[in-house]
Amino acid sequence: MKNMSFDSFKTIDIICVGRVAIDFNPNEMYRTLDKVDTFTKYLGGSPANIAVGLARLGKKVGFIGKVSDDQFGVFVTNYFSKEGIDVSQIATAKHGEMLGLTFTEISSPTESQILMYRDGVADLELSTDEISEEYIKQAKILLISGTALAASPSREACFLAIHYAQKHGTKVIFDIDYRNYTWKSKAEVGVYYAIAGKMSDIIIGSREEFELMEMLSEGNKVSNCQLADKYIASGNKIVIIKHGKKGSIAYSSDKLAYKVESFKVKLLKSFGGGDAYASSFIYGILEGWDLDKALEFGTASAAMVVASHSCSDAMKTADEIKAFIESKKDDGKVITEIDWSDEI
Amino acid sequence: MKNMSFDSFKTIDIICVGRVAIDFNPNEMYRTLDKVDTFTKYLGGSPANIAVGLARLGKKVGFIGKVSDDQFGVFVTNYFSKEGIDVSQIATAKHGEMLGLTFTEISSPTESQILMYRDGVADLELSTDEISEEYIKQAKILLISGTALAASPSREACFLAIHYAQKHGTKVIFDIDYRNYTWKSKAEVGVYYAIAGKMSDIIIGSREEFELMEMLSEGNKVSNCQLADKYIASGNKIVIIKHGKKGSIAYSSDKLAYKVESFKVKLLKSFGGGDAYASSFIYGILEGWDLDKALEFGTASAAMVVASHSCSDAMKTADEIKAFIESKKDDGKVITEIDWSDEI
Amino acid sequence: MKNMSFDSFKTIDIICVGRVAIDFNPNEMYRTLDKVDTFTKYLGGSPANIAVGLARLGKKVGFIGKVSDDQFGVFVTNYFSKEGIDVSQIATAKHGEMLGLTFTEISSPTESQILMYRDGVADLELSTDEISEEYIKQAKILLISGTALAASPSREACFLAIHYAQKHGTKVIFDIDYRNYTWKSKAEVGVYYAIAGKMSDIIIGSREEFELMEMLSEGNKVSNCQLADKYIASGNKIVIIKHGKKGSIAYSSDKLAYKVESFKVKLLKSFGGGDAYASSFIYGILEGWDLDKALEFGTASAAMVVASHSCSDAMKTADEIKAFIESKKDDGKVITEIDWSDEI
Amino acid sequence: MKNMSFDSFKTIDIICVGRVAIDFNPNEMYRTLDKVDTFTKYLGGSPANIAVGLARLGKKVGFIGKVSDDQFGVFVTNYFSKEGIDVSQIATAKHGEMLGLTFTEISSPTESQILMYRDGVADLELSTDEISEEYIKQAKILLISGTALAASPSREACFLAIHYAQKHGTKVIFDIDYRNYTWKSKAEVGVYYAIAGKMSDIIIGSREEFELMEMLSEGNKVSNCQLADKYIASGNKIVIIKHGKKGSIAYSSDKLAYKVESFKVKLLKSFGGGDAYASSFIYGILEGWDLDKALEFGTASAAMVVASHSCSDAMKTADEIKAFIESKKDDGKVITEIDWSDEI
Repeated sequence: MKNMSFDSFKTIDIICVGRVAIDFNPNEMYRTLDKVDTFTKYLGGSPANIAVGLARLGKKVGFIGKVSDDQFGVFVTNYFSKEGIDVSQIATAKHGEMLGLTFTEISSPTESQILMYRDGVADLELSTDEISEEYIKQAKILLISGTALAASPSREACFLAIHYAQKHGTKVIFDIDYRNYTWKSKAEVGVYYAIAGKMSDIIIGSREEFELMEMLSEGNKVSNCQLADKYIASGNKIVIIKHGKKGSIAYSSDKLAYKVESFKVKLLKSFGGGDAYASSFIYGILEGWDLDKALEFGTASAAMVVASHSCSDAMKTADEIKAFIESKKDDGKVITEIDWSDEI
Repeated sequence: MKNMSFDSFKTIDIICVGRVAIDFNPNEMYRTLDKVDTFTKYLGGSPANIAVGLARLGKKVGFIGKVSDDQFGVFVTNYFSKEGIDVSQIATAKHGEMLGLTFTEISSPTESQILMYRDGVADLELSTDEISEEYIKQAKILLISGTALAASPSREACFLAIHYAQKHGTKVIFDIDYRNYTWKSKAEVGVYYAIAGKMSDIIIGSREEFELMEMLSEGNKVSNCQLADKYIASGNKIVIIKHGKKGSIAYSSDKLAYKVESFKVKLLKSFGGGDAYASSFIYGILEGWDLDKALEFGTASAAMVVASHSCSDAMKTADEIKAFIESKKDDGKVITEIDWSDEI
Repeated sequence: MKNMSFDSFKTIDIICVGRVAIDFNPNEMYRTLDKVDTFTKYLGGSPANIAVGLARLGKKVGFIGKVSDDQFGVFVTNYFSKEGIDVSQIATAKHGEMLGLTFTEISSPTESQILMYRDGVADLELSTDEISEEYIKQAKILLISGTALAASPSREACFLAIHYAQKHGTKVIFDIDYRNYTWKSKAEVGVYYAIAGKMSDIIIGSREEFELMEMLSEGNKVSNCQLADKYIASGNKIVIIKHGKKGSIAYSSDKLAYKVESFKVKLLKSFGGGDAYASSFIYGILEGWDLDKALEFGTASAAMVVASHSCSDAMKTADEIKAFIESKKDDGKVITEIDWSDEI
Repeated sequence: MKNMSFDSFKTIDIICVGRVAIDFNPNEMYRTLDKVDTFTKYLGGSPANIAVGLARLGKKVGFIGKVSDDQFGVFVTNYFSKEGIDVSQIATAKHGEMLGLTFTEISSPTESQILMYRDGVADLELSTDEISEEYIKQAKILLISGTALAASPSREACFLAIHYAQKHGTKVIFDIDYRNYTWKSKAEVGVYYAIAGKMSDIIIGSREEFELMEMLSEGNKVSNCQLADKYIASGNKIVIIKHGKKGSIAYSSDKLAYKVESFKVKLLKSFGGGDAYASSFIYGILEGWDLDKALEFGTASAAMVVASHSCSDAMKTADEIKAFIESKKDDGKVITEIDWSDEI
């Protein structure tokens, strides 16, 4: 990427900020949740999964967050530590806040619902006092997950973290990761997403998430490239707009646009791919790869995770992903350069 | 029991009020919770377990409570329905309240800790609007679980239910069931337990719970029979004070006192016995048995449940409990009549 | 009163518990509040007014309450101190709670409305930690104002105070003083009023307040004497049921009943009379007067206050009240003994 | 002002957003608040005072806010209406929220403290639903008061209003107006002030308020012109930094800087001047005056208000202010052009 460079003196590759949770995935699949008897416990939460993904890819990763003062909190910090992730900036909740829980109902390989415990969660209690300017200064990238903006004081902690990142030349990635939990209104979502989006260098989100951020009404005729134009005008370098099964489009500030399709794999479940995609794409960016190569890598990683039972444990190494891409070589291209105004 | 009779025109044997939750019991036992990989899901919550226990014993049982508007709420009502428990008075939470969750850490056969999710729980949102005077009027017994007094509006709903019970000759059992969650102070616990205790016909609690109710300081010299005297003076018919592994003492308003010891069994876990004890003891009371026979039946039931993996699913039928007592006949007496002032 | 005696070793005549507020009474009267330009500030709040009333009558008075940590809080404690009221048990709010404010709209001599600031008020933050058993033990009477039961933790503080009073032979007066602020539902009001009512020795309330306490539906046919019977059966000694302008009826546990009418005076405003009535009636009780004499004294005091601009500053001395009664001697009797079942 | 022009098709001169309250100013001055007996009631709240100021100066003014559903709310809307301010966008609180109250303690002509009732206030309940894009589109200027950012949902309502203003070419004035009430931390203040500051065309604040916005530590060496440079770089046209009695400095994006001193008058009280200053300065801007002339007009208006008993009622007409300036002609210049980097 010619339009994005990192200060090689910075010793941390990426700091992920926000939600870390426990996923309970059903052992008996393809039935409704009330009929599930046993569950397997995994680390979860989008920025936590991305952190694990990048650690497995060999990057130096830190995490800023807050965990419960109980055995589940211990599970999280132990898990991160074993993956080599720095846990020095993970605070422990002092007022009985709990880790969020995500019970997944896997109805079929392509359908799933989640039942979330998000009331009084520790991650949203992350406060401005727990954001270290010195720590953020050491990182090449700060990744903010949109769910961390859903409530105070986590919201202000994120804005303060972005403030420090901007001050010290740390690039900001905004992974919109919208969950309708906790937010009080759609207008609130739009207001804060737009503020965070304009403060970022890279935005990753689905078309629906961009529409939320822009407070667009349903059935609007705004094109993807108009959205990209707006954020690039306010300083963004890369804008990735996802369209679910149809793939996604990436725009860069040097006026390149790419269309990305999925690798063909046998799905076990329909979730977890996004975090794998983000972590592997960011890996490519950190490696200085061209945008198309980073996108291919992210897409491959996503394909591998949706074929597995978890979102964190299933994260792959760089060699595994390369081998997967190699094995799929004959299936046709997944990345194509397109004209700026082409739609999916 | 000569000192307790029920109106035979009442069509419901017992209505249990309060907490219904989901228990997640570890499949890998005797390790800390962070190291557990898989869990089995069960119905839980003290009054819910007692309701299941009495339904298995063939009694006509109703439940007043509130469940989440999600698949876990569906699980609860379906489970109750299959057991024959009337679910017509189980409300569904309308503001995103969730079912409480209890993750149990079984450290050893005799030690266990719990990690509870009780923030914003549906059961504590039970409100006075959801208490039907007509329903309570139909019941012989109303059982109030002390945890339902831990917060408003559930607290007021319980007091209103007791008010209706007193008005219509429905006997009130107060099962103290203290959990330190949710309560704001020890003084708050004492104040409301004492009010509920004085309004009841039967109180069941541990020595520690009676001390909380009486706001006694540690190391106090108040005897069990003094505690019993006080509540019998304010109208109670039976007072049961439990001393953990040492057994318990039961006092009745006709000045009989019994000491109860445990049956010897191989423990799998150390919890769940109390709810089995309560349900089987109440069964005896409803059958018109003498106090000692009802206590023996409760004690046997408790022994059977602590040897099993769950607290609800493991509840036994009357025949199973009778067979168990028969099988233990040669191990010696578990129930002994004692002098009023004898201590354990 | 033969049916009520006080321990002469107790050094405090009465402790009042609950609301102390600031009244802002309009200087421009008989117009709506938005058109009032200037206000005069007075001490207010029912138990605070009663405390001032009894201090002016020469009794030894204490107050348990909580005030704001600001100049209004200083005003209250200074005012009390100047009246000779003991302020040692008045706590200061530590979390920014404010004194309640009452802006009175005096539409006409017989009509008034109030605009209350009761959000986050200091008085309702009185907590169980601030209730001294030793202090209550020293008092002949503990007066609980019903508004103090409207929310936690003040509600629990009151129940704990009653618990200590019962333990040490301090008589409990429950002045229902219902205000629809703060309470969450009518059922909540009924539940807690009934609990407090049954724990008291004297209850003072309007007919509407008794109906709330008993959760009676509108248009019910329950007679005053049935209400009195019920509370006397649970231990009350005196029950006073007020009927506004029509006067009130007092019942005592020795089966005497009295009807009380108002003295004829020129009204300035329609409020404040109740607190004057209560303070002067309690004065009579403390003096050992017969019920009818105490009632006459209370009624005279009420008449004098509704002819004045404030509820606290206008409280009279015993000599002033006696002189007033003397001056009204020719207007006819205000107190009449009636049959138990006579209605107003 | 060459660097600021307004769309002459817009029919509203200015919309003020935020706090409207009731001021209770003491009639007995120069004593502590607990010793004050009577108070006079006035309209208050910084953006409300500015709205009144601009209406008195003949401008077309609208107000977006929320008032209580009681006589005080009626007082506010009636007062505004009489001043010719459009009240169509003033919502009425539906959940018992009250108007904020400000009791002022005037210790001396130069010292004053305030005792604020801000708990559960109506103005901070202004929500995004109550912000009309169509209304804001019609205005030349949108004035946001910093206190409206102190809590949700008012905070989001303001950001949405700014979003609409930016979309439709309505200039944004950010009047920092910091009050330490309601804000949870200094970091929260800094985060949101910086966001609002960067979205504005004109910022008005004290040096202390700019330091809060920039999260500067005490004793920092950042110069006023560095602060101005930063906000002008992010798009501001005018930056006014006030230094209390020492006067203030105004910077404009065309690189002019002016120093402003106070007119000499006999002070009655030390507050209210800021709102008069803002309203009269904005008047000058709307009239297309040069920066120095607008500043002089604002400064004169401030001097006239601090010599009066209220902050709203005392607002002057343009002719009165002009006459005042004329009368002070011989006292020396209050406005001086300075070098960009000169400090006060």
